[in-house]
Amino acid sequence: MVSRLSLYLRELQQLLRIGKKTISSSKLGRRLGVTDAQVRKDFAYFGHFGYPGIGYRCEELVLEIRRILGTDRTWPVALIGCGNLGQALLGYRGFGKQGFQVELAFDIDPAIVGQTFEGLKVIHLDQMRELVQEKDVRLAILAVPAKSANQAVETLVAAGITGILNFAPVTLNLPKSVSVVGVDLAMELEQLAFAVVKQGQATK
Amino acid sequence: MVSRLSLYLRELQQLLRIGKKTISSSKLGRRLGVTDAQVRKDFAYFGHFGYPGIGYRCEELVLEIRRILGTDRTWPVALIGCGNLGQALLGYRGFGKQGFQVELAFDIDPAIVGQTFEGLKVIHLDQMRELVQEKDVRLAILAVPAKSANQAVETLVAAGITGILNFAPVTLNLPKSVSVVGVDLAMELEQLAFAVVKQGQATK
Repeated sequence: MVSRLSLYLRELQQLLRIGKKTISSSKLGRRLGVTDAQVRKDFAYFGHFGYPGIGYRCEELVLEIRRILGTDRTWPVALIGCGNLGQALLGYRGFGKQGFQVELAFDIDPAIVGQTFEGLKVIHLDQMRELVQEKDVRLAILAVPAKSANQAVETLVAAGITGILNFAPVTLNLPKSVSVVGVDLAMELEQLAFAVVKQGQATK
Repeated sequence: MVSRLSLYLRELQQLLRIGKKTISSSKLGRRLGVTDAQVRKDFAYFGHFGYPGIGYRCEELVLEIRRILGTDRTWPVALIGCGNLGQALLGYRGFGKQGFQVELAFDIDPAIVGQTFEGLKVIHLDQMRELVQEKDVRLAILAVPAKSANQAVETLVAAGITGILNFAPVTLNLPKSVSVVGVDLAMELEQLAFAVVKQGQATK
């Protein structure tokens, strides 16, 4: 359900960009591969029933979904690890658009600490606790090598981080009070391989 | 359903790594937040019904799921764009583990073409067609800036690429014969924000 909310949100934002003000549940469902009934059920769950003959108002739904997801505000985010992946993530425009602002960037490599990427100066991880509390940061993006991940996590938890987006291909040892979402990029390639195989069979 | 298959696969691979040979549908479901009934339904769909008193054999299921996803072989992959993100993806160990091997890396920036990253020499995109056909590559990872994405895609399609993993935050204009999976990293952060908000409410 929560991941469908993100999908709805992206699609509604896209519709607004191209100037559409309303959408029917069946059209929205078709665009996302979800049944009409499922769309109506999801929206009814948070009190939206659409308007007869009009459908759903895109802007209203966008606001409502962002409120539910907690992205109706801007979240300050800490980035841990400023190697290639970390630098790529600092340049990633998609975060800012959805209400996430990387405000702190940390590393432990003396060759990287002190450098500036995308206008942010990299700070040593040792200084994390103080800065995270000062800026009331609760979300962190972990972009360190697998072998350093669990050590970094101890510092994050001690600093008061309660949500971690984990790019390190390793299971993190975390207290229950900390949420984690793992990014597994190979999973996306699997979906693609499946689609390519199926498409190949369909056109034979 | 297809994305659940990837989830099952990761969990079963993890179980094998820690030495578990079998698993019940209820335990597997609990680990993934899927109902017992859904797990049984998914596996029955491709002919696996488990063994009474034993459950499912992890290794058998891994092989079967990989066969369905099309990852029971190694897929050669072309990487388009070798900036920070591209270089990070070249170093990403997760692809190889799941049967994806980046064999070609392309760029158009004279400062990058000719450089070697992770043992791969970056080639100019102009030479893509010939090389992709020689190596029978069908999957490409697109890691170029948004403004260059659609121009790059023309070259990819002309070269015979039929599946694109798109990191560029832009909608691609593609013929129907080409599959695309978009990676939206902000979506993962939204899931995390939601979890953090919910956790905060639960502990109040």
